[in-house]
Amino acid sequence: MSYKISKATLGRLPMYLEFLKRQKVENISSTQIAKQLELGEVLVRKDLNAVCDQGKPKIGYNRERLIDSILDCLGVERKVSAIIAGAGKLGTALLDYKGFTEFGVDIKAAFDIDPKKCSEHLSNGKCIYSMDTIEEYCRSNDIKIGIIAVPQSEAQDVCSKMIQCNIKAIWNLSPASLDVPEGTLVKNENLALSLSFLKTCMIRNEE
Amino acid sequence: MSYKISKATLGRLPMYLEFLKRQKVENISSTQIAKQLELGEVLVRKDLNAVCDQGKPKIGYNRERLIDSILDCLGVERKVSAIIAGAGKLGTALLDYKGFTEFGVDIKAAFDIDPKKCSEHLSNGKCIYSMDTIEEYCRSNDIKIGIIAVPQSEAQDVCSKMIQCNIKAIWNLSPASLDVPEGTLVKNENLALSLSFLKTCMIRNEE
Repeated sequence: MSYKISKATLGRLPMYLEFLKRQKVENISSTQIAKQLELGEVLVRKDLNAVCDQGKPKIGYNRERLIDSILDCLGVERKVSAIIAGAGKLGTALLDYKGFTEFGVDIKAAFDIDPKKCSEHLSNGKCIYSMDTIEEYCRSNDIKIGIIAVPQSEAQDVCSKMIQCNIKAIWNLSPASLDVPEGTLVKNENLALSLSFLKTCMIRNEE
Repeated sequence: MSYKISKATLGRLPMYLEFLKRQKVENISSTQIAKQLELGEVLVRKDLNAVCDQGKPKIGYNRERLIDSILDCLGVERKVSAIIAGAGKLGTALLDYKGFTEFGVDIKAAFDIDPKKCSEHLSNGKCIYSMDTIEEYCRSNDIKIGIIAVPQSEAQDVCSKMIQCNIKAIWNLSPASLDVPEGTLVKNENLALSLSFLKTCMIRNEE
């Protein structure tokens, strides 16, 4: 399976997916989708036609088939293993969370420098190991994704370790900006920016 | 202060902000920004010209001034109070996190149905109260933003309570899709979708 889809389109697929899952209709047109998501119609049509057959005139897309096409395109069938660096509140919340497997990501373990947090068996049977063992673990378990949930000051160190163990994709939940070699993917998840966006919309709504 | 900026532009501002903060140059052109973020040049210029004066030909935008304009536009100066429903791992991680105040959002307290979690004083002096008191608290403390960090099955109930106490903006970290009256904003934060996007990009990179 190989799709010729631009990264920009790919970045919007989760948004379409979430929107489509919330709808209750059988069919939906690109016009309706564009209006609800405040996107251009041409853009929406371009995005959706990249992942599935064109919608039917006056009927639109079959919602469930469109969802399946997007899931397929997002590669949810392919299983990938991940680990978390940092077993603080956020790190363990992610380790506990069951929703990632739905998208084919299996978070196998977490790592922390605090010996008190290590070896702790969580409700789902997953373990927290010493940070000293992260490289060995990643190499022996074919870990592809590293999740950074350590404080900002430690993020770059942890990131460099992950790269040494051949991790090719990093999900960065710290506010640090990471230096990585070419070919390594970084996705920065800044929750503060996300909440700030909601606040801005709210202020505008009040005006 | 009132901006005539489309919601789509507003939604991209955090992305520009994060990108600009990571750069080390004094000036940056819309062409460079567009290339790095994989966006169209026309779009980037339209977005940036909506928040600040045009960049200078052959020089571009002064990076720091552009950051200030975006921050101004995001309304970071205006302080808004928020509360969290659900004091599990994710909820308390957010309650602990200091990065929200930078954007003018003050998370004042959390609420939980589990009596064992209540009255607990966290490191930063913030409290977790009984869910029974959420409405009273929100009314007396002029709470504008509600953060939902409860399990999916409880999310709609909590959301309805928040709307009853005049909360106008909801940050939904549960996978539930919420029914809200017109005029109430909901921002769904689906971390699983975000991680899934990183995975998809990684698979594509390997192909």
